[in-house]
Order: sequence, then C-alpha cells, then structure tokens
Amino acid sequence: MPRKCIVCGKDSVVFIPYARAAFCREHFISFYERRILKTLKKAKFDGGRVLVGVSGGKDSMALIYALNRLSGELNIDIFTVHIDLGIYDYSKVSREIVENEMSRIGVKYEIVNVRDYLGVTIPEAVKKVRRPACSVCGIVKRWILNKIAYDNSYEYIATGHNIDDVSTYFLKALFTQRVEDLMRGHDIITPPNLEYRMIGRIRPQVYLSERENQLYCIFNDIPFVKDVCPLARGALLHKYKRLWEDILQLNPIAQINLTKTIMKLREKIPQEKVDLQKCKICGFATTSKDGICAFCKLKLRIAEER
Amino acid sequence: MPRKCIVCGKDSVVFIPYARAAFCREHFISFYERRILKTLKKAKFDGGRVLVGVSGGKDSMALIYALNRLSGELNIDIFTVHIDLGIYDYSKVSREIVENEMSRIGVKYEIVNVRDYLGVTIPEAVKKVRRPACSVCGIVKRWILNKIAYDNSYEYIATGHNIDDVSTYFLKALFTQRVEDLMRGHDIITPPNLEYRMIGRIRPQVYLSERENQLYCIFNDIPFVKDVCPLARGALLHKYKRLWEDILQLNPIAQINLTKTIMKLREKIPQEKVDLQKCKICGFATTSKDGICAFCKLKLRIAEER
Repeated sequence: MPRKCIVCGKDSVVFIPYARAAFCREHFISFYERRILKTLKKAKFDGGRVLVGVSGGKDSMALIYALNRLSGELNIDIFTVHIDLGIYDYSKVSREIVENEMSRIGVKYEIVNVRDYLGVTIPEAVKKVRRPACSVCGIVKRWILNKIAYDNSYEYIATGHNIDDVSTYFLKALFTQRVEDLMRGHDIITPPNLEYRMIGRIRPQVYLSERENQLYCIFNDIPFVKDVCPLARGALLHKYKRLWEDILQLNPIAQINLTKTIMKLREKIPQEKVDLQKCKICGFATTSKDGICAFCKLKLRIAEER
Repeated sequence: MPRKCIVCGKDSVVFIPYARAAFCREHFISFYERRILKTLKKAKFDGGRVLVGVSGGKDSMALIYALNRLSGELNIDIFTVHIDLGIYDYSKVSREIVENEMSRIGVKYEIVNVRDYLGVTIPEAVKKVRRPACSVCGIVKRWILNKIAYDNSYEYIATGHNIDDVSTYFLKALFTQRVEDLMRGHDIITPPNLEYRMIGRIRPQVYLSERENQLYCIFNDIPFVKDVCPLARGALLHKYKRLWEDILQLNPIAQINLTKTIMKLREKIPQEKVDLQKCKICGFATTSKDGICAFCKLKLRIAEER
C-alpha cells in the first residue's frame, strides 16, 4: 500500500527521507517551491534584478522554472543566459532545450557563444592548456556570467548549486584538510561588490538535492539534458556520491546538517580580509597576486599555444 | 611476494595505508612509539607526573606500555589506576589482565573499586537511573580518575582516545549539527586548572587507530581484554565504523585530516568563556547551572531510587 501524501491524504508518488514526508505530485511541487522561498527569505534576500545561468541540466532547469513561478513572491525580475560551450552534440542539445523551454514558459533569454569571449570553444581551450575540463569551464562560465550581469546592471546571478554539490565539496575539504575551502563559497547569498564589478550571487537550491531537482522537472514536464558532459571526469566525485548514499541511509539529513554546521562555524570565525584588486587586463575582480584574473590568464595561455 | 619494510628492507608484516608504508614487526613498534612521541612533542608537552587509566582494552594497554617505554624521552613519571566497574566476568577478566601485566612490566599501579566511590556497581547504577550505560560509566570514570589524580598531585591524566573514536565523534557532530561538540574535547593536551581541581589531560593516541593499537599489543605480546563490554550498545557506532571503512578506501588519511581540520578551525574561533564553578557537594569543577556536578547528580539519583 503506498504511503499517503502528508498534505492531502491522496496516494503519494514520492518520499523525501530527510523531511520524513510523502507527497503527491502537486504537493511535492509546492514543498519544493516553499523550500526555495524559505531558503532565500531566511537569508534575508529581498529581491532585485536576477540573471539566471541555465545550462539545460536538471538543476538549472528546475531553478529557472521555480524562480519564474516565485518571481512575484520573491520580488525578482529574471533574465536567462545560456552559454553555448561548443562541446559538440552535447552543447547543441542543451542549447535547443533551453531555447524551446524558455520560449514556452515566457522567460526572457539570451544565448551567448563561449567563442565570442574566449576566442575558442571549451574543448579547444582544454586541449591547449592541458588542465581539467571542469576547472577551465568553471572559470570561463563564472567570468562570462559576471560580465553579462555587470554590463546589463543585474544585481544577482542565481546558480544551481544543490546540496549534493555543496556537501560533497565540504566533505572533501574536511577529508583533505583544506580549511580554506571550508571558509569560502556556497553561501545562500553573496552580496554584490560593485566597486570591484562583482555581481551578487544567490544559491536558492543549496538545501535541495539533485534527486529533488530531477523530480521537480519530471512532475512539471520540464525537459532537461540527460547526457553527462563528455568532458567531465567525475570518477572521484562519483565515489563520493556512493559514499553519501551510505551516509544518508544512516542519517537522511546528514548533507543538510553538514552544510549548516560549516555555515555556523564560519559565522564564528572572524573573516580574513580578502585582497581584491581589479584585473589589469579585463578590469574585473581578482585575488591573484600578479593582478591578472584566472579568465585572462587562461586567454593568455591559449594565445601562447596558438 | 610480501612488501618489504621501508626501514630495513626485510619482509613486512603490516601495511599502514595512511603512511603508505610497510613495516616489519620491530619497525612497526618504533613507528608507533615515534608517532606518540611526535604527537606529544608537537603539542609542546613537557612531561610531569602522569596518571594512566587502564581498562585492560587494547587502547589503554598499548598506551601504558608505550608511555612506560618512552618515559625517559617524555620526562614523565607514570602511575596506573584500574577501576573495577563491577561488570560481572568482564570486569574480573579486565582486572586480572591489568594486575598481571603491570606487575610483569614493573609499572606502579592501584586497583580501585567503583563501589567505594559510587556506592554501587555500574550495572546497578544503570539499572537505577535508566540512562545509557556508556554515558553513566563515562561520568563515573572521569570523576574517579580526576579525584585520584588530584589527591595524589598528578598533573595529567593520559587517556586512550584513538583516531577512530575522535574522528567518529566529529563526523557525527557534523552530521547532526552539534557545533558545540566540535568546539570541545579531544585536544592532545588540556592544561590543568588547579583552582577548580581539574587535572590536565593528554591524549597521546589521538592520531593512532584501533588497528594500530591492537597490532602494537600483538607485536609486543601484551595481553588485552578481547571481549566487548556487555553493557555497551554500540549499534550506531558500529555503523559509523563501517562507513569509515568505505571512506578510508577512498582516502586513507581521511580520519586524521578530518580531526586536524576541526582542530585548525577551532584555533580560528575565539574561545567562549566557560562558566566553571565548584560542585556544591564534592568541590570538583562543574559547568552545571545548578552547581552540582554530573557525578554527584548521579549519586543523588541512585540514592533516591533505593
């Protein structure tokens, strides 16, 4: 006999272990959206102009869909950018999905091409600089999104970080003694710092899992890219995912608790002043000692290899 | 073909994954003892009169044996106490092993009876107060050891906490959002606070595992109690142990790194002042708001239940 939805008592279609709750389709959707709303409200987010980077994967597709639905309550004006990374068929499929779906739900969007900013595609860049693809791609996407947001006066960029990402990042940092990684990133809100042209960040899905994002897409008939990026080397991350499965068996709320614990510890630690400066080449913020940001260094490296 | 000992090149009998090193019997023993020496020296321990609580288990038997061998280098004067907890045959066997072994290796020792302090045995106490046995036993042992050390002018009590204990305690605290548990205990050295009759603590085995302690006993022909305490309810802890096996497969130094990371985070956090006072009944330190320490509360509860 299936469990009953804890809201309406109808047969449920999903059980969320950490919430100890079963939901029907409709009430899972509202549970999911309430969670985003609560996460942002608790972090005292009071709205504004928000740029959403949408890759076409389940996390970002769920994010744009939910933010669009919640735009009134959150007092936000949203706009979407999809960056075509030039990763063969994977990028073509992603782009199509984003274009079709944004038109369908009526969200303003723009497609930009990584080549217009970097001069080359991601596969070409990775080949030239011989560094892990995900690290190269991360630098590039961060810089492009920040630039577009800055040029168009957006106050925040919304990113699709989920609890699996964040808790794995922290667990790995704890197991490898990288204290500095525990100290930075993954806040629900990072305020803008316009003096240094840094747009603010919001991470509305920090307390939602990949599985919940996927279910939200499925229950709302939102299409998403199902393929894994062909450049990703996820072996270690994959092992951590299996580890989490065991941990969550023991304690279903372990990922959320770990993340909240790290956030609480951070609050107790006096923030070290970060030495920000403006990149000598592009003018955007960098902490690099030589005053050249990671994106511009990458471009220089690529130019050298031509 | 067996690996070779990294020190002498003979066939090895043990491989220590986190150290990426194989050892013969003799050189594992010196590796183990160097590790204790290094742990204490790095924490700036400069010796003194040390009371060692010895239960008869592998951790404490390895501890007293190693401290006895290192007493010159550590500049310590050691004395052993075994507390007979009155836990049926388990306590009888433990007591015999400690008596025989302390006589054989020539360490001064005393056997005390929990009944002389608490009025009842541990099983009787647990039955009366209906609380988890390990928690009752912990309170009682801590108080008795502190009292004996205080009455006999010892500066430090050495305890047998190993990396499995410590890292599991921290992991559990992270997964259950118990920030306060991350903030206290398990330092390599806790200095004495004689105004409040608190004897100092040293935890020489914090960076050694249960397995290493057991191997040290076996390679030195040190007998130890092999039975598990019949009162222990270790189901959850047992599950965490299996979890660590998976984690250590992924990263053999994860327990040590986690512990060191927590210790580093602590150093960054301004210590909150602990509100110590002297117990109204026994005069030893307590943080309890009503001014009665956990041990005296236990005695009161037991008296009420008579």
